Amino acid sequence: MPADVAIIMGSQSDWPTMRHAADILDELDVGYRALIVSAHRTPDRMYEFARSAKADGYKVVIAGAGGAAHLPGMVAALTPLPVLGVPVRSKALSGKDSLLSIVQMPAGIPVGTLAIGEAGAANAALMATAILALSDDALAARLDSWRAARTASVAEQPSDED
Amino acid sequence: MPADVAIIMGSQSDWPTMRHAADILDELDVGYRALIVSAHRTPDRMYEFARSAKADGYKVVIAGAGGAAHLPGMVAALTPLPVLGVPVRSKALSGKDSLLSIVQMPAGIPVGTLAIGEAGAANAALMATAILALSDDALAARLDSWRAARTASVAEQPSDED
Amino acid sequence: MPADVAIIMGSQSDWPTMRHAADILDELDVGYRALIVSAHRTPDRMYEFARSAKADGYKVVIAGAGGAAHLPGMVAALTPLPVLGVPVRSKALSGKDSLLSIVQMPAGIPVGTLAIGEAGAANAALMATAILALSDDALAARLDSWRAARTASVAEQPSDED
Amino acid sequence: MPADVAIIMGSQSDWPTMRHAADILDELDVGYRALIVSAHRTPDRMYEFARSAKADGYKVVIAGAGGAAHLPGMVAALTPLPVLGVPVRSKALSGKDSLLSIVQMPAGIPVGTLAIGEAGAANAALMATAILALSDDALAARLDSWRAARTASVAEQPSDED
Amino acid sequence: MPADVAIIMGSQSDWPTMRHAADILDELDVGYRALIVSAHRTPDRMYEFARSAKADGYKVVIAGAGGAAHLPGMVAALTPLPVLGVPVRSKALSGKDSLLSIVQMPAGIPVGTLAIGEAGAANAALMATAILALSDDALAARLDSWRAARTASVAEQPSDED
Amino acid sequence: MPADVAIIMGSQSDWPTMRHAADILDELDVGYRALIVSAHRTPDRMYEFARSAKADGYKVVIAGAGGAAHLPGMVAALTPLPVLGVPVRSKALSGKDSLLSIVQMPAGIPVGTLAIGEAGAANAALMATAILALSDDALAARLDSWRAARTASVAEQPSDED
Amino acid sequence: MPADVAIIMGSQSDWPTMRHAADILDELDVGYRALIVSAHRTPDRMYEFARSAKADGYKVVIAGAGGAAHLPGMVAALTPLPVLGVPVRSKALSGKDSLLSIVQMPAGIPVGTLAIGEAGAANAALMATAILALSDDALAARLDSWRAARTASVAEQPSDED
Amino acid sequence: MPADVAIIMGSQSDWPTMRHAADILDELDVGYRALIVSAHRTPDRMYEFARSAKADGYKVVIAGAGGAAHLPGMVAALTPLPVLGVPVRSKALSGKDSLLSIVQMPAGIPVGTLAIGEAGAANAALMATAILALSDDALAARLDSWRAARTASVAEQPSDED
Repeated sequence: MPADVAIIMGSQSDWPTMRHAADILDELDVGYRALIVSAHRTPDRMYEFARSAKADGYKVVIAGAGGAAHLPGMVAALTPLPVLGVPVRSKALSGKDSLLSIVQMPAGIPVGTLAIGEAGAANAALMATAILALSDDALAARLDSWRAARTASVAEQPSDED
Repeated sequence: MPADVAIIMGSQSDWPTMRHAADILDELDVGYRALIVSAHRTPDRMYEFARSAKADGYKVVIAGAGGAAHLPGMVAALTPLPVLGVPVRSKALSGKDSLLSIVQMPAGIPVGTLAIGEAGAANAALMATAILALSDDALAARLDSWRAARTASVAEQPSDED
Repeated sequence: MPADVAIIMGSQSDWPTMRHAADILDELDVGYRALIVSAHRTPDRMYEFARSAKADGYKVVIAGAGGAAHLPGMVAALTPLPVLGVPVRSKALSGKDSLLSIVQMPAGIPVGTLAIGEAGAANAALMATAILALSDDALAARLDSWRAARTASVAEQPSDED
Repeated sequence: MPADVAIIMGSQSDWPTMRHAADILDELDVGYRALIVSAHRTPDRMYEFARSAKADGYKVVIAGAGGAAHLPGMVAALTPLPVLGVPVRSKALSGKDSLLSIVQMPAGIPVGTLAIGEAGAANAALMATAILALSDDALAARLDSWRAARTASVAEQPSDED
Repeated sequence: MPADVAIIMGSQSDWPTMRHAADILDELDVGYRALIVSAHRTPDRMYEFARSAKADGYKVVIAGAGGAAHLPGMVAALTPLPVLGVPVRSKALSGKDSLLSIVQMPAGIPVGTLAIGEAGAANAALMATAILALSDDALAARLDSWRAARTASVAEQPSDED
Repeated sequence: MPADVAIIMGSQSDWPTMRHAADILDELDVGYRALIVSAHRTPDRMYEFARSAKADGYKVVIAGAGGAAHLPGMVAALTPLPVLGVPVRSKALSGKDSLLSIVQMPAGIPVGTLAIGEAGAANAALMATAILALSDDALAARLDSWRAARTASVAEQPSDED
Repeated sequence: MPADVAIIMGSQSDWPTMRHAADILDELDVGYRALIVSAHRTPDRMYEFARSAKADGYKVVIAGAGGAAHLPGMVAALTPLPVLGVPVRSKALSGKDSLLSIVQMPAGIPVGTLAIGEAGAANAALMATAILALSDDALAARLDSWRAARTASVAEQPSDED
Repeated sequence: MPADVAIIMGSQSDWPTMRHAADILDELDVGYRALIVSAHRTPDRMYEFARSAKADGYKVVIAGAGGAAHLPGMVAALTPLPVLGVPVRSKALSGKDSLLSIVQMPAGIPVGTLAIGEAGAANAALMATAILALSDDALAARLDSWRAARTASVAEQPSDED
């Protein structure tokens, strides 16, 4: 299975968040690779990754980072591929800094930004899937099933049990 | 030229922002249709639009809204297509409410959110283009040229003239 | 006892908050039904609920949701009944996103918004009761007693015991 | 026409905002009285107003105030009637202080809070109407017409004219 | 010892914060009384307290409250005595709502506001002492000693021990 | 008339705000002196002012500053007199930075903080007056009259004229 | 005069802010060069600038940017020189996004951040001067004079003239 | 080894944060002294420290403080040396108050501000090192090695182990 999606993150500490993206891609049978690429600590690695991402066969990049989160925007500056950004929750500001650093990109370089934290990571994977499904009917069918199953799983009434 | 992109917005007052998306799509020769679809004032129209968007041939939906901005998230709940959200600047809170209402979607229903205001509208168009370019090499080439021209246009030094 | 009030919420995880509304309605002998209705995961269920809420005999709808909280506003767009919104506390932003997503509705579609979290859920029930009491003198008397008892229960001085 | 609704505000400077509530009530043929009642400058007037509001025949109170906005909550403490709060935009903080001062009421004393500024004032009037319409079928019909006319007035496409 | 200072608070749950004011007054030998006076649950008690505070011999009122914190401002509207406000930390917004509800008073009715939480309670007591010391030289001397002792207690270097 | 109150401010640009304090003291016949004392540009002047303020006969210090507003807190560290702080509106953050820099003092050094901007300046003067009135019955009577006149000036109903 | 300081900025639109840095360096006779280097539009130019900045003889880099401001942090990742960041005021969020994007750098890559806007630009120049003055006694003397003159220019009392 | 860097902090409670600065300086073999200097509790000590810092041989001052954090800015007003500020996380506002109190300095007195908390403390040490390295080639080499080692330590892929 080729890796259509790259899940990159600034550090090992982002993995507990970003693995929610990997889990969804596993469920939907979408190929991906998860890599640590730090804009600040490994800027050369980032350049190389971003500059060759398209030639390497990736179609969508999911980038997660926290605090002054520059990874998604910098990768978007260096590749024409669609880049999805996941603001990882930060210690002091709970991800508000991550969110603004990722979403407030100037005109010209877009980053499709998802919610802060685990929900955002899961949704980045679903968004990547929706993008890939535009030219993959089988994947589109799997995504439809996933969504339908999720709808069907919602109980009618709240339960006091949990 | 088929309309691959739908640009929808909650009201006429969002158009001065959202036309920046239309302008970029015009520059890049991407077909689109611009529609007013209000989640709150025309919920039935929204349902119909979103439920039939894929069958109508759209591939990407760009949705702009301000304040308690529910349009992008509701459309994303009703279509499997990728949905991009543009937070329109609001009067009292300058778009901070629009941003949070759009980006903080729960796991399961993604909205790829762009920056507040005009920059976000322009970037939604560029993001839509990058998505469409995945299966359209001619468009990919046009996007590369657009990006290269933009890079080339940056002056070396600031000018006191303007 | 007919169900005058519908307590709806986006997911089971909102119930620990929303049951404070149910508790108050129990204390005041107001009929209600508690339902899970997700704007994002079950949009059709939401449409059906909201469109038939008045015909089903409800008089007031209490809707709780967190994050990009679209449920209260969307229901308000689909029913002429008074809708009360409860911003549920969210993980990263502690309910600030929920509050703005619920309260900042555009002119035309009102949601009477209460405080973030449990206090808001309790107060939504009290507000619903005050609305119903306008045409139910017995209920008005029960509400007056409830309020008087609560006033009487306030100690004169703080105690070091707790 | 009896005054079912009291529109109160902390000062003359709130009237440009609050008259949007009056305008909507005029359109819907709902009786109201507009009064200046300041929690801080005229606390006795506020006590008298709130303590006698029900006996005076009011059914709903709409209270607008800005900054450290105590009027809605204090009136809600003094009357069993439903109280709707409108956060008026403040100079330095653009109504964020008004919003939090009104909406964050402790459990026991609810204020149904609307959006900051003019939209909130208009919506308070619509909310009051929805409440009154529960026991007034003619008013319910007028409200339905008002909502339907508003839905019908939404153009299909944005116009470059304005 | 006459009670020169009233320490009032909206509920028993504010006492763990407000007792830091009491502790400081104990240390400085300033007479005080601690009372629960809720603007929302016991508005009549609040009126009576505030209206008679001066006649009852109080010289300074310290008022603590959280969330939509109306107690300090309402008391300030009802008594000519200096009123000091302490924003108690709230659950969802960590006292930011309390702070804005207390400090953003309109021109005409001042509340001298201290920091959020325990530091603010302690400082309200020190501020009250500084006010009383203006006409009590013995108290002024005690306050000077207290401040000097505190200055003297600051170590020269940080210690790894704690 | 001796100057009981010092009105100090960080720069000439604060005077349009702080003169609202001076105006109120003029109305109430309270002696004051207005001085520019910058914590950052004239730290020695600040030290001398604060260290000698009590000996110079001042009883209350009103300090206004904007941005990283250190003047009120530093003066409070250097004098035992009660210090009132006025957060001046700042350009980028509209006084939110000024407010937090003034109000969030650590336990031990209190600054009684008023609202952001002109209302805060006026209220600092009223608070200073209330403090001085504790030992000046004539001033207390003037303050009572001022408050009563202000209450009496509140119109019953809003006027469309302004 | 060699250029010890590089003043870089993301776009021409930052120059009205950043020229305040240039003005201060002119006053203090410090050599500098002002360049447009966009992290997002000209990432290669940024890499080349940053990688060769030390070899090119620069000693301090001042970088200004707005919104999702990645320039200061990325340059700091690519050069061992001290980097000072200036958050330029942004349209929707008034520079709050710029500030957080610049200051919240992860451990390992420091950016010395100054205030939002013109004050920050001026202070970046003063900070650069203080750094260079550590090994340049003549410059240290000029900086001392500049500071002394500024202190001397503060009037004793506010003037109603301006 | 002479102490080129002073690490000062407002209280012992800041040491768990500020020791991250000390640790980095230890790793890089930079001489420093750690001192408690409180702007509010020991203003005289602060004056003496700051006034003599240059004569005492310090070249850079790192100042950490929380809440209404005045220490960095006041020291910067009293010494021509470069001052780096570390916003310590505060209890109620998580360091947002500390950040604004430190970074928003007026034009004329710069404080190079780092991130909130431990990352900021570590980065202040790295920034001080970069400044000292401008005239110390051996230190520059050590800093280069430190940065290179850090880059080399970044794993290629996230690990599920931790």
